[in-house]
Amino acid sequence: MAEINASIGFDRALWRQDIRGSLAHARMLSAQGIITPDDEAAIRAGLADIAGEIEAGRFDFDPGLEDIHMNIEARLSERIGEPGKRLHTARSRNDQVATDFRLWVRDAIDAIDARLVSLMRALSTRAMEFHATPMPGFTHLQVAQPVTFGHHLLAYVEMLARDRGRLSDARARLNECPLGSAALAGTSFPIDRHATAQALGFDRPTANSLDSVSDRDFALEYLSALSILGIHLSRFAEEIVIWCSGPYGFVTLSDAFTTGSSIMPQKRNPDAAELVRAKIGRIAGHLIGLMTVMKGLPLAYAKDMQEDKEPVFAATDAAMLSIAATDGMVRDLAPNVERLRLFAGSGFATATDLADWLVRVLKMPFRNAHHVTGKLVAMAEARGCDLSGLSLADMQSVEPAITDDVFSVLTVEASLASRTSHGGTAPSNVARAAQLWIDRLGEDA
Amino acid sequence: MAEINASIGFDRALWRQDIRGSLAHARMLSAQGIITPDDEAAIRAGLADIAGEIEAGRFDFDPGLEDIHMNIEARLSERIGEPGKRLHTARSRNDQVATDFRLWVRDAIDAIDARLVSLMRALSTRAMEFHATPMPGFTHLQVAQPVTFGHHLLAYVEMLARDRGRLSDARARLNECPLGSAALAGTSFPIDRHATAQALGFDRPTANSLDSVSDRDFALEYLSALSILGIHLSRFAEEIVIWCSGPYGFVTLSDAFTTGSSIMPQKRNPDAAELVRAKIGRIAGHLIGLMTVMKGLPLAYAKDMQEDKEPVFAATDAAMLSIAATDGMVRDLAPNVERLRLFAGSGFATATDLADWLVRVLKMPFRNAHHVTGKLVAMAEARGCDLSGLSLADMQSVEPAITDDVFSVLTVEASLASRTSHGGTAPSNVARAAQLWIDRLGEDA
Amino acid sequence: MAEINASIGFDRALWRQDIRGSLAHARMLSAQGIITPDDEAAIRAGLADIAGEIEAGRFDFDPGLEDIHMNIEARLSERIGEPGKRLHTARSRNDQVATDFRLWVRDAIDAIDARLVSLMRALSTRAMEFHATPMPGFTHLQVAQPVTFGHHLLAYVEMLARDRGRLSDARARLNECPLGSAALAGTSFPIDRHATAQALGFDRPTANSLDSVSDRDFALEYLSALSILGIHLSRFAEEIVIWCSGPYGFVTLSDAFTTGSSIMPQKRNPDAAELVRAKIGRIAGHLIGLMTVMKGLPLAYAKDMQEDKEPVFAATDAAMLSIAATDGMVRDLAPNVERLRLFAGSGFATATDLADWLVRVLKMPFRNAHHVTGKLVAMAEARGCDLSGLSLADMQSVEPAITDDVFSVLTVEASLASRTSHGGTAPSNVARAAQLWIDRLGEDA
Amino acid sequence: MAEINASIGFDRALWRQDIRGSLAHARMLSAQGIITPDDEAAIRAGLADIAGEIEAGRFDFDPGLEDIHMNIEARLSERIGEPGKRLHTARSRNDQVATDFRLWVRDAIDAIDARLVSLMRALSTRAMEFHATPMPGFTHLQVAQPVTFGHHLLAYVEMLARDRGRLSDARARLNECPLGSAALAGTSFPIDRHATAQALGFDRPTANSLDSVSDRDFALEYLSALSILGIHLSRFAEEIVIWCSGPYGFVTLSDAFTTGSSIMPQKRNPDAAELVRAKIGRIAGHLIGLMTVMKGLPLAYAKDMQEDKEPVFAATDAAMLSIAATDGMVRDLAPNVERLRLFAGSGFATATDLADWLVRVLKMPFRNAHHVTGKLVAMAEARGCDLSGLSLADMQSVEPAITDDVFSVLTVEASLASRTSHGGTAPSNVARAAQLWIDRLGEDA
Repeated sequence: MAEINASIGFDRALWRQDIRGSLAHARMLSAQGIITPDDEAAIRAGLADIAGEIEAGRFDFDPGLEDIHMNIEARLSERIGEPGKRLHTARSRNDQVATDFRLWVRDAIDAIDARLVSLMRALSTRAMEFHATPMPGFTHLQVAQPVTFGHHLLAYVEMLARDRGRLSDARARLNECPLGSAALAGTSFPIDRHATAQALGFDRPTANSLDSVSDRDFALEYLSALSILGIHLSRFAEEIVIWCSGPYGFVTLSDAFTTGSSIMPQKRNPDAAELVRAKIGRIAGHLIGLMTVMKGLPLAYAKDMQEDKEPVFAATDAAMLSIAATDGMVRDLAPNVERLRLFAGSGFATATDLADWLVRVLKMPFRNAHHVTGKLVAMAEARGCDLSGLSLADMQSVEPAITDDVFSVLTVEASLASRTSHGGTAPSNVARAAQLWIDRLGEDA
Repeated sequence: MAEINASIGFDRALWRQDIRGSLAHARMLSAQGIITPDDEAAIRAGLADIAGEIEAGRFDFDPGLEDIHMNIEARLSERIGEPGKRLHTARSRNDQVATDFRLWVRDAIDAIDARLVSLMRALSTRAMEFHATPMPGFTHLQVAQPVTFGHHLLAYVEMLARDRGRLSDARARLNECPLGSAALAGTSFPIDRHATAQALGFDRPTANSLDSVSDRDFALEYLSALSILGIHLSRFAEEIVIWCSGPYGFVTLSDAFTTGSSIMPQKRNPDAAELVRAKIGRIAGHLIGLMTVMKGLPLAYAKDMQEDKEPVFAATDAAMLSIAATDGMVRDLAPNVERLRLFAGSGFATATDLADWLVRVLKMPFRNAHHVTGKLVAMAEARGCDLSGLSLADMQSVEPAITDDVFSVLTVEASLASRTSHGGTAPSNVARAAQLWIDRLGEDA
Repeated sequence: MAEINASIGFDRALWRQDIRGSLAHARMLSAQGIITPDDEAAIRAGLADIAGEIEAGRFDFDPGLEDIHMNIEARLSERIGEPGKRLHTARSRNDQVATDFRLWVRDAIDAIDARLVSLMRALSTRAMEFHATPMPGFTHLQVAQPVTFGHHLLAYVEMLARDRGRLSDARARLNECPLGSAALAGTSFPIDRHATAQALGFDRPTANSLDSVSDRDFALEYLSALSILGIHLSRFAEEIVIWCSGPYGFVTLSDAFTTGSSIMPQKRNPDAAELVRAKIGRIAGHLIGLMTVMKGLPLAYAKDMQEDKEPVFAATDAAMLSIAATDGMVRDLAPNVERLRLFAGSGFATATDLADWLVRVLKMPFRNAHHVTGKLVAMAEARGCDLSGLSLADMQSVEPAITDDVFSVLTVEASLASRTSHGGTAPSNVARAAQLWIDRLGEDA
Repeated sequence: MAEINASIGFDRALWRQDIRGSLAHARMLSAQGIITPDDEAAIRAGLADIAGEIEAGRFDFDPGLEDIHMNIEARLSERIGEPGKRLHTARSRNDQVATDFRLWVRDAIDAIDARLVSLMRALSTRAMEFHATPMPGFTHLQVAQPVTFGHHLLAYVEMLARDRGRLSDARARLNECPLGSAALAGTSFPIDRHATAQALGFDRPTANSLDSVSDRDFALEYLSALSILGIHLSRFAEEIVIWCSGPYGFVTLSDAFTTGSSIMPQKRNPDAAELVRAKIGRIAGHLIGLMTVMKGLPLAYAKDMQEDKEPVFAATDAAMLSIAATDGMVRDLAPNVERLRLFAGSGFATATDLADWLVRVLKMPFRNAHHVTGKLVAMAEARGCDLSGLSLADMQSVEPAITDDVFSVLTVEASLASRTSHGGTAPSNVARAAQLWIDRLGEDA
């Protein structure tokens, strides 16, 4: 029972938040006349000492006291006596843990956000560097149309920007203070919940005491946001793994992000990318795990909710590591520009440009232009040449109205340059977009 | 292959969105001089006719044409000829399906939001009705302290308000238009993406064409929000199942929300609540399902992403039904006020009030007050009476400083009335909170 | 990179299995003449020393050496020199880790199986004790028909027996030895994989080297089996929570499995049951997490697969704790026989018996009998009495053919005694079934 | 309420199983003298007629009758009168639905098993065809050592064989008949559950009536087995997608399993493979969905369990389609033997063979051999040649003891031929393993 019941093994991670919360609570109790200023001063000093002990690794966590909250409170009473026993006035473990955990998640969001900014900076900077570097754009992992390497990197900047948005919305939504909801019903003490909320950086106190101690939405929403972020990182990681693979050879990672073996020192196993790709599984598993825990729980507090912390801690670690590893890889990777250029032009990648020319210049209906292009591609394939390798006569044998002008759109560079629609891959677009992000994100700290 | 490949079996649900998107696209093509006004007029008329056919159930969906987009386009060309073949200019199925699906999810959010408002109104109105009705407040499904039935209902209003917030944030984030991103790289036609975005009610066009056709964040975020909502509804459903159970007998549901049997006509099986409780499983399954689908997909479009629609459609159905069923149950349920009152005072539910009195009046440290209260509870338990059944002498035998005043805090009503802290369960608080929500939410339409 | 790459933080749990595998490998290498008997002796001695060091907590795990395998091998070479460098002949980390992990999972299955046997014994013994104790049988948490408490407990024995079957099948399926598959292609050394397989207790070597190093089915199947087990335990835990709740009061748990508070010493929060109920979420999360990790991984080994261990370790801990806690609660719980009896007869729980009497004695078609019973139940409900409280005249006013004999089936005891169909709840059946299980399972060790 | 409650929309899929179960039940009732032989004959005839109506699409399913069971029973009474009303004697919807659903899952397992056999045959036959065809063996998607294409295909045969084992174990475990458990407590009628069990092909009746109507293990275990199968198929699908990608060009799929576009007729998008890759997400989503539904449900039947069917039906469809599509692709795909051979020898893929030679011939400790090999690989890389491109003098400059014999192990063919350890990739091994499977699996029907 002790083994399954005690949470001190993992919830000690909340110690800073617990002390912060207690300090705010004590100050409010004193301001409201519920405890004396002397009591508050004693509590403040005692908690500072305890923080020092924990920081220094000298605090003796006692599983018999079950959790971090009881460990700290018991130690406080041990150190300062009676004032310590007054700290828990107008508070319960239920609202205390809810407050501490919200503070922890809020801190985690801030830490993740900072790492995301760094990663987005890295991507934007590299995108600017390669804003005009052709690479094959894939659909179904088949070459479809040329894009630029910078454009590809900026796609991830967009994803990560949405991730930041989700985290930011989650942060705003969680930023209400449950402290003072007591066990579940509120309290009869003349507390000032607005004061504690403000002292702890919350926007306001929560509005319903039952909801306050029963709610773990903030953890679920946070894990959802991390899961979607994890999907983005897994997609990029998969691309890196494929790009590093021999037949592709699109990019090279240095030894800092790969492992070799003593026997094949030339080998560069993209271990970091593979681990990032895997982490989404772990994160999403933690999300669904906590969802299942919360399913069907009657109000208000139930011990089931103690299972909220490990998934959140583990998913945070996984996300922090994944972002940092991706950041490192983005800054580290060296694209093989020649190979990217080679494949950018493979597979009749400018067929769409030909079709669009037929529509634009010959005013052919789009579906007909598709049909003509198809014939020309088939002809080129049979000849073993590119579209630009066909002669004008060849072209005219399929569609007599074609003129020499058509060849101007069949190169990779022309194709890229023409995609100037909003959000399109034209190098001018990409440079502008990269600069926009660089400006928005500011310099690395 | 045809069987696994065709999506028309489910994506026909997108037909309205597809036609809306095509109308906006055609108008823009015409405004930009890419097609003629006559072409646009023909397209507009043709699509209107097709909408009529589908609406009337006369449209013949052809699995050979794979999806809703090709079915409509093929029918259009069949009806109006060449202009129909021009419609797909500067567009690809990739951006088309991304646009249609965003529009569908946006519509679904709006529909769900409307149902949530109705449910919140029902809860708030019932909360006002029962703002002073005592019921036992539970932790660990053990009676802890009295609360009011209205306070309990308002806890769910808080949860649902957060659900609305999440859906609203998701809606704002998805409200960018991918149309014009073409296959993956943008287009060389002089399109006006801002115009189509505006015509379709989007805030702006998306910023990166690769991201535009690869992104399904909006579906994942929507499913995440529905999952958290589903958890809330599952908790309430669990409570209803327990409350309806014989030993509790806290509430009664009418035949409209229960099933009996011919043999036990008095039985009222809370089937609706049980189904609502179960739906979260299905919704969360769809969420994790789509997350797994999206994991590790290289850019840009991959056919895997076709598996995005069924989970979203099915989860939407489940959520819509669950909200409506819960709404109905809230309006229907009749609390058994006597039983609620009876259990509200059971289990020494006012022990905390006694402890708080010791702290407040006798200035006893909280932990000591706890200890004294514990002794008195144990004494009452041994005597088989309530705390208020103890005599003053009994009380003073444990703590001599106790006065007659203590009895004033030991009733359920006194306990409730005293919890006036912000968010506490005092009837005055609950009435104020219920009124606030009623005012915010407005009348039922 | 080091931080994301190193696994020594968790895979040190494999140390016993790693040493066991290396001993078998060395013996085989020596038997096949690939290393000398002296080398083998040195390796054996060295590994024994290392085992001693780890056991004694004197082994210095080095994150720089990444994982448990390299830590042990490096230490071995440090201790015994050249023979240590020969140990890895005809082996690779890929087949080594696959072997170690299979051994670990096999050991875990055995440990869990032993705990399940203990729990099943506890349930069977208590079932015998209460084989004739009436309790209400619920559907939809509504009283439906009387059952016996023993019968209810034996339902869980059946579930756990299936769990044992699943674990046993998983064990049989995993019991093939990957050692000797080397990196992915097998080896040119004249190894004897049957010998190492036998030495390690495997039924045979695996059949395909690529599959051997890529396969994590055993982990997934194991987690699946734990998840289904976890669902069973969560159902029982939910029942305990409800049974302990005041309005039910069906069972009491001692302080060993509940927590109270200093303020409400009478309160018995069923924390252990709540934690067991929650653990299924965590376990299922680990299952889906690993499934997502494995999704779409190309052959053969990928670093993603390093994410297999933490979920398996954590789920094993959760399952071990949950079984032990449930075992303890089963042995500890005291049913409140009077209350169970009271509710067993509530809610017209013998209505089915009446209907069956009408069919059996009056030869009424079942659906008609249902209808007549319904009328009588409604009549009794209106009168505020039980079915047995109706007079024969009352009964005959609805169905004239009813005789006095009917009253013999309307008691709880008669109802129970009559359910003698195979698997039915008749006390004689239950006693027989309990004894069968007690005999099968043997005594507690 | 009607909308959320009715299941006839999906459970009509159970109609065959429902009629089969009713026929067996009626025969037993008659044999036991509970109904007359005439009643049974009427029931038999009536059910046969109803089966004909459903088969012919003439049956009018009525949502007002909620589910398939009531639809059929009501129609039966309509057709044959009183005997129809006797059919439900000694049965309840709870045991009836449990029986029908088990029969359905059993049928599904058999259907899936047949498809798996076909797929395994296809793989084995192609494996024999390419048992000696070199291809690069990858770890981390980096070329590691040569393997044969046949060996790679046989890895999947091993996985699928385990899948069959899991399904077979699940089938054996589910093959107990719940019919006769009645609502939850068994029945007082003198039924013969062994007779109905036998008539329906079950091994025996279930042992505990409460468990019988509460249990959905069979659905969960089945979904777990499908999920692991789905992971295997997703891995192969991912490989096909990569192999079909331009830079790889390892295999070609015909138009039957790819889609092109009118504009790029040469393009072969591996849509079928991508859909198979995605299906695992859906299947695993259904698994976790049903797990979440079942979590924490008290005994016995609860309406939540009605949510069991849609996930099982949908996952079955996804699995059936995925296996068939993979089967088709295996039979269809044409490996590009030259390209496979080219990459098989790339990346110093025979470095391990060199190291093993140093150990075997020069008796060098393995770790030292690794080190020497590493130096030689680095030298070759610097020279831009293969290992076989180094001269003996080059070799001896690193390790003087090397002799000319070393060159005999440095070719792809020599490497392959040498891997004769059990399960290794030597062509002789692969041919033997392929033949073994071909013999085991028999001919295509």
